[in-house]
Amino acid sequence: MGVTVAIDCMGGDHGPVVTVPAALTFLRSHSTVNVILVGREESILPLLGEALAAFGSRLRVRHASEVVGMDEPPANAMRSKKDSSMRIVADLVKSGEAQAAVSAGNTGALMAISRFVLKTLPGIDRPAICSILPTQKGHSYVLDLGANVDCSAEHLLQFGIMGAMLAAAVDHDERPRVGLLNIGEEAIKGNEVVKQAGELLRNSGLNFCGNVEGDDIYKGAADVVVCDGFVGNVALKTSEGLAQMLSTFLREEFGRNLFTRIMALIAMPALKRFKHRVDHRRYNGAVLLGLRGVVVKSHGSADPFAFEQAIGRAADAAGNQLIERISLKMASMSEVAA
Amino acid sequence: MGVTVAIDCMGGDHGPVVTVPAALTFLRSHSTVNVILVGREESILPLLGEALAAFGSRLRVRHASEVVGMDEPPANAMRSKKDSSMRIVADLVKSGEAQAAVSAGNTGALMAISRFVLKTLPGIDRPAICSILPTQKGHSYVLDLGANVDCSAEHLLQFGIMGAMLAAAVDHDERPRVGLLNIGEEAIKGNEVVKQAGELLRNSGLNFCGNVEGDDIYKGAADVVVCDGFVGNVALKTSEGLAQMLSTFLREEFGRNLFTRIMALIAMPALKRFKHRVDHRRYNGAVLLGLRGVVVKSHGSADPFAFEQAIGRAADAAGNQLIERISLKMASMSEVAA
Repeated sequence: MGVTVAIDCMGGDHGPVVTVPAALTFLRSHSTVNVILVGREESILPLLGEALAAFGSRLRVRHASEVVGMDEPPANAMRSKKDSSMRIVADLVKSGEAQAAVSAGNTGALMAISRFVLKTLPGIDRPAICSILPTQKGHSYVLDLGANVDCSAEHLLQFGIMGAMLAAAVDHDERPRVGLLNIGEEAIKGNEVVKQAGELLRNSGLNFCGNVEGDDIYKGAADVVVCDGFVGNVALKTSEGLAQMLSTFLREEFGRNLFTRIMALIAMPALKRFKHRVDHRRYNGAVLLGLRGVVVKSHGSADPFAFEQAIGRAADAAGNQLIERISLKMASMSEVAA
Repeated sequence: MGVTVAIDCMGGDHGPVVTVPAALTFLRSHSTVNVILVGREESILPLLGEALAAFGSRLRVRHASEVVGMDEPPANAMRSKKDSSMRIVADLVKSGEAQAAVSAGNTGALMAISRFVLKTLPGIDRPAICSILPTQKGHSYVLDLGANVDCSAEHLLQFGIMGAMLAAAVDHDERPRVGLLNIGEEAIKGNEVVKQAGELLRNSGLNFCGNVEGDDIYKGAADVVVCDGFVGNVALKTSEGLAQMLSTFLREEFGRNLFTRIMALIAMPALKRFKHRVDHRRYNGAVLLGLRGVVVKSHGSADPFAFEQAIGRAADAAGNQLIERISLKMASMSEVAA
């Protein structure tokens, strides 16, 4: 009996034309995972071809009559769209028909609906959004990425626990290094909340490696980097902007004239390998942590390859007992405290 | 009568072997600027050769017996090292002998000493550190970069004014676009302080262009980006880390074997132009804004080329009446408020 992933086919900038092919490719390469495609049947069925017959009980379609808009206010999506594809994927996880949900829709709405339907785990005050970033040594998990703007030290501690349990589950590393994002040693070291969070993390039983600075993220100085949602969001988006600018400049320099275009052709193998290593699509799929179920948010602009990675991350987290791991750790923490 | 720049020759990872050659190169290409080299004469004089004779009154050496260490606590540097090269450059600006100071030393100590010696301008509560970053369209000024960890809305407003006056002075753009760094539109839009700062900036008379997100920095969406020191420091350091990782990956892919090394040789002209465009040394020199004098902080690891850029930024800001511009704007703001 494998994991079943419920996929919101309507979310994202492109909807079913991206999500459905991604799901089919994923099914082909992951024989133990089942998929429920959720959304407007009239949009999904024509894209399936022979797939329904080919995959048998591993592939199901669940009709949902409504769609949450990419700019729709979360409260609106939550209250008035009870038959949206986003709501149904959460419902399927709640009922146990699926063990994980994936959506490329509106982040705020996905968080609000998931929280309303699934509720948070005992001891978790606020769910967090956890992204995976490439580093010089492999990859790191960074959270929170924007769900929580004002955080207390206790919230940051909870983020550390959840991030560590995610790394433990999917990377099979039982003692991932947890770092606290802070500012330069030269200046005053962080604000009061961060200082207190450092104390809590030091006494948490986690493999806490102390403060890390912005540049340490990409050096791979920690497996899990903890920060509040404002700082995390800025760090992530700034990285995206810089990567985009550098890639534009590189393209411009190699596209300048006939000679540089010939250079680009000759250098293509090396350039391609470079591009693959930093391909942000491979890191698509942020995990909404702290809920009583696995929910993964894909980038809205994901292509089929990128969306497939998000499905994979959801299946992986659910298959490796992410929720159980967080629950157990939270329970053991409250025993220590009691 | 040109500008005189006082240079702390002892600061930075390399000290006089970097700062002195940088100053001499700068003097050669800027005939209206004078320089005072400050530090241990026995370290500086041997590096000057014929320069003292060649530049005449444009080049002076001022002995300072002490040096502020790169890891020295700011309070210590300020109180007990009254004859440090860092202290003397600030004293020279205070006395009017120089119009700007440059140091590659310890940021915290430079800020503490500059603030103690020069004091802040009327209406400015806290000085800020303002860096210049490359963008798709040119460059932007970002502040604060770490001097102020907990900021009020009023502080952010003051940063906006100071950044706009810097852009006006050195880029000759009298209405630079000022943006407020904030998080994704999808999520809750920022914390209370940022929301209030948005209101203040909207009513400030500045050319306020609203919220910008992390990726907008490198898109050049604003000429001046305002944020608190924690967020700004993380954004800057994260960018440094990512750029470093990408450059390592690019080098690794082109250095993989004989064939890729040949590719690199052939592609060298395009790679070199790319490297030049994103060369962080060209953007060296953060301005300490809000003081009654121009103080520029160079990166500690600067090489002569990078340090020369920091000297240039100091001369440029002083020569274009940066301090007078900030004072006038602050005075006009308080008139409006009265």
